[in-house]
Amino acid sequence: MKSVEVFAPATIANVSCGYDVLGLALETPGDKVVMHLNESKEITLDRIEGDEGRLPKDPAKNIVTAVVKYYLDQLGLQQGVSVELYKQMPFGSGLGSSSASAVAGLVAINELMGAPLSRKELLPLAMEGERLACGNAHADNVAPALLGGLVLIRSYDPLDVISLPYPENLFCAVLYPHVEIPTSEARKILKTHIPVSDAVKQWGNVAGLVAGFFTQNIDLIGRSMEDHIIEPIRAMLIPGFYEMRQLAMENGAIGFGISGSGPSVFALCDNEATGTEILEKLSDLLKKEGIGSNKYLSPINQAGPIIR
Amino acid sequence: MKSVEVFAPATIANVSCGYDVLGLALETPGDKVVMHLNESKEITLDRIEGDEGRLPKDPAKNIVTAVVKYYLDQLGLQQGVSVELYKQMPFGSGLGSSSASAVAGLVAINELMGAPLSRKELLPLAMEGERLACGNAHADNVAPALLGGLVLIRSYDPLDVISLPYPENLFCAVLYPHVEIPTSEARKILKTHIPVSDAVKQWGNVAGLVAGFFTQNIDLIGRSMEDHIIEPIRAMLIPGFYEMRQLAMENGAIGFGISGSGPSVFALCDNEATGTEILEKLSDLLKKEGIGSNKYLSPINQAGPIIR
Repeated sequence: MKSVEVFAPATIANVSCGYDVLGLALETPGDKVVMHLNESKEITLDRIEGDEGRLPKDPAKNIVTAVVKYYLDQLGLQQGVSVELYKQMPFGSGLGSSSASAVAGLVAINELMGAPLSRKELLPLAMEGERLACGNAHADNVAPALLGGLVLIRSYDPLDVISLPYPENLFCAVLYPHVEIPTSEARKILKTHIPVSDAVKQWGNVAGLVAGFFTQNIDLIGRSMEDHIIEPIRAMLIPGFYEMRQLAMENGAIGFGISGSGPSVFALCDNEATGTEILEKLSDLLKKEGIGSNKYLSPINQAGPIIR
Repeated sequence: MKSVEVFAPATIANVSCGYDVLGLALETPGDKVVMHLNESKEITLDRIEGDEGRLPKDPAKNIVTAVVKYYLDQLGLQQGVSVELYKQMPFGSGLGSSSASAVAGLVAINELMGAPLSRKELLPLAMEGERLACGNAHADNVAPALLGGLVLIRSYDPLDVISLPYPENLFCAVLYPHVEIPTSEARKILKTHIPVSDAVKQWGNVAGLVAGFFTQNIDLIGRSMEDHIIEPIRAMLIPGFYEMRQLAMENGAIGFGISGSGPSVFALCDNEATGTEILEKLSDLLKKEGIGSNKYLSPINQAGPIIR
């Protein structure tokens, strides 16, 4: 195989109470990478579309070419590769944009090399991509982007990743308000210490959320989608967050939270129509405040990246 | 019905990483209460056995008669009751001794009154008993003592209690070393604030433990039985804790931890013989240090209190 096209999905990290340990993959949006092998020994970035000129064109700095180089170095391979990146999702949105690009790049180069690594084996390399992109090798975006579905990162050291079940017919209604919060900034404002009493609430909710997903108990999932630690701080950076939550919950959302470090927010819904209606109302609410937004309605993506 | 005998079980609160949110019931040991209705309007404590004279004989101060009075007051009932308490487990052991007594008393009086309350409805009353006994209305002993099995307390406000599944053939090998640590003291030495990074590890493990119980994945249950927050502090009060852990793990335990606030420790095992062997080795280890101990080997108690 000389060429491949890979789509890798956007992701919702944390899923409310599961800070740094839970994430889920969306079917849409995501990023597309087209990759060609060639006879050179260079990794070149031939094309970037959809980034409005904002991503680095230097292959050493662009996340996709950087992870491709890292992959080849780790496997001791020398290979000429040319890369095209089609950004099909916003970045700085809290939807795992850099993860989607890195995962698409890794899955593409792995496929072109004859798939020597499983998707789970690609995870540490994708986490290295996250370190390049935002200085922190967290896995709550790259793990679901690579593996699809709903993923628990039980432990980072050693890395222990578990795919969780979830009810069918869940829809994520995702709204990206056009305000920018870089992930590194969003992490900086978090406290380094928290009260034990808040931590106990959080692990009660994380346990409840996992139990709710296993038992397909929509009500328990909703009750457990409470974040007493990270959300109150990050919500300050998201205009109208609590009004949006109230609107979503009044209109039938199971739960509502911040996607990753924001500013995107998501309403978990048990049917598509509810999601559509909530997105309309949320975007109208922000429009009144003069804030534009993107709307995405997606089931949970079971398959993960798609190779074409 | 004029008389009833109720056995209520000892419990392992926390189950390693689930501080204040997880607990499980044992089949043995536990406490027995015998209760008789009479024509007086008094609640009397006619007999206490097995306490070596250490429990209060004043019905206003004894936990069993106190919760019986609380129950009758809450339901607006006036009723003469005489109570006999047969302590069949140590107290100050970290095995939920006061919970077992309170639950036995509550189930007994409820049964004699015609069972107007369900076991779940008795829970807030049992928690009030915990407040009387140790100043803190926690539920991680009383909930499993009342409901049996493995219980998640997702939230205390509002109270939200969820019974979790678990693999068959799990055995708890429990060792109670003869050193005393009152619960109120054990809670005092805990920190009020913890690093977010430790909290993330903890809720990753709690989520992994719940997932392990749902999937009957013994290995995942074992990997998740890590407590980075409470155990390192409480272990200091338990002689030989880390030697005991090593011995238990080397001899086939799935996981090892402190029961409640200690000093009892438990090894979770996937068969009875392993549990027996581990208990022998642990008690021998302590004996060398001049410390006596009680050994209990029990499956998880699915049924909860037993009415005879």
